[in-house]
Amino acid sequence: MPKLINHEERKILIAEAAWRIMLEQGMEGASVRNIAKEAGLSLGSLRYYFHSQEELLKYARELVSERISQRVDKIFANDKKPKEKIFEVLLVLLPATGELKTELKIRLIFKTFALQEKESFSVEQDGVFLAIKNVMSNLLLLNLLEKELDLSFETDRIYALLDGLAFDILLRPDVSTAARAEEILLYHLNTICSKGFK
Amino acid sequence: MPKLINHEERKILIAEAAWRIMLEQGMEGASVRNIAKEAGLSLGSLRYYFHSQEELLKYARELVSERISQRVDKIFANDKKPKEKIFEVLLVLLPATGELKTELKIRLIFKTFALQEKESFSVEQDGVFLAIKNVMSNLLLLNLLEKELDLSFETDRIYALLDGLAFDILLRPDVSTAARAEEILLYHLNTICSKGFK
Repeated sequence: MPKLINHEERKILIAEAAWRIMLEQGMEGASVRNIAKEAGLSLGSLRYYFHSQEELLKYARELVSERISQRVDKIFANDKKPKEKIFEVLLVLLPATGELKTELKIRLIFKTFALQEKESFSVEQDGVFLAIKNVMSNLLLLNLLEKELDLSFETDRIYALLDGLAFDILLRPDVSTAARAEEILLYHLNTICSKGFK
Repeated sequence: MPKLINHEERKILIAEAAWRIMLEQGMEGASVRNIAKEAGLSLGSLRYYFHSQEELLKYARELVSERISQRVDKIFANDKKPKEKIFEVLLVLLPATGELKTELKIRLIFKTFALQEKESFSVEQDGVFLAIKNVMSNLLLLNLLEKELDLSFETDRIYALLDGLAFDILLRPDVSTAARAEEILLYHLNTICSKGFK
């Protein structure tokens, strides 16, 4: 066991090794054996941190949400104007800027994995969903939303839009550019804000 | 070789066996060996139809698009009013009705697979994208669209929305019901049609 790295840090390194494998080989490569190898650990050492593949993948998935939430919190804490922060948060949820590209790609892989393993993705624990809920309640707080909008309906609508856009940005980067994504987001916000968003 | 089944029919049976495996185990299970077993064929027999896993998966992917397009064509050919057909087409692209549920689920698995194997998903050959392009040009033909709308922009917008909705319907069926999906689609159409859609 290396001495300079603590338990939590080691778990993060292992989860990141799992991410790298998922990016290259998808879920099909993410065996405990492969992940141990990628992390430069013996199978025995890895099992010290994670007792099962399920436990490891759960941690790797939660780390994605955590990273997204941390990034979002950082934006909300900056000194810009509320509307600018809101727009910045929505943009960071798209893999267009490169900033959370790995996390957002891994998120889609986990989401698709959930089509076969139901319990493996919970919208309520999804960093993207949480950020959108936050954004919607902020828009409400700032009295920006059209009156009589159904908040849960609008949350689902923008959530669906962002998920689809994320895919498109990754698979058609020549068409779905950062600029186009920004335009689509702004268009959407303008339709739900009573005086337009900007 | 069975005598009562022709070459193309056999290829379809094999592709459908690949689909079943993908639904249960994801891409990670879709080895030629597993697919042969699921299809009740020897590895040698399967190789008579498909020389490689890549060729088989390409066929299985194209079959998804073909089934979607066939279903869409059938709706366009029915006797209802143009607007009703358009709405029916958009609805059938969502895994809410159950009708194309398998195909649409498989489509998302292929789409995610393309995050690692770029060439394996082309939007231009995607049955859902083709149907949406069709719908948009029909809305234009019927003079229903708002003037000065950017058609390619609007196509991408509804494409993203449908992809995200598809995921949500599959992963949160309790919230993302068929009725809610219908409501979201109608809302979207109302914002792009100059006199509303209905």
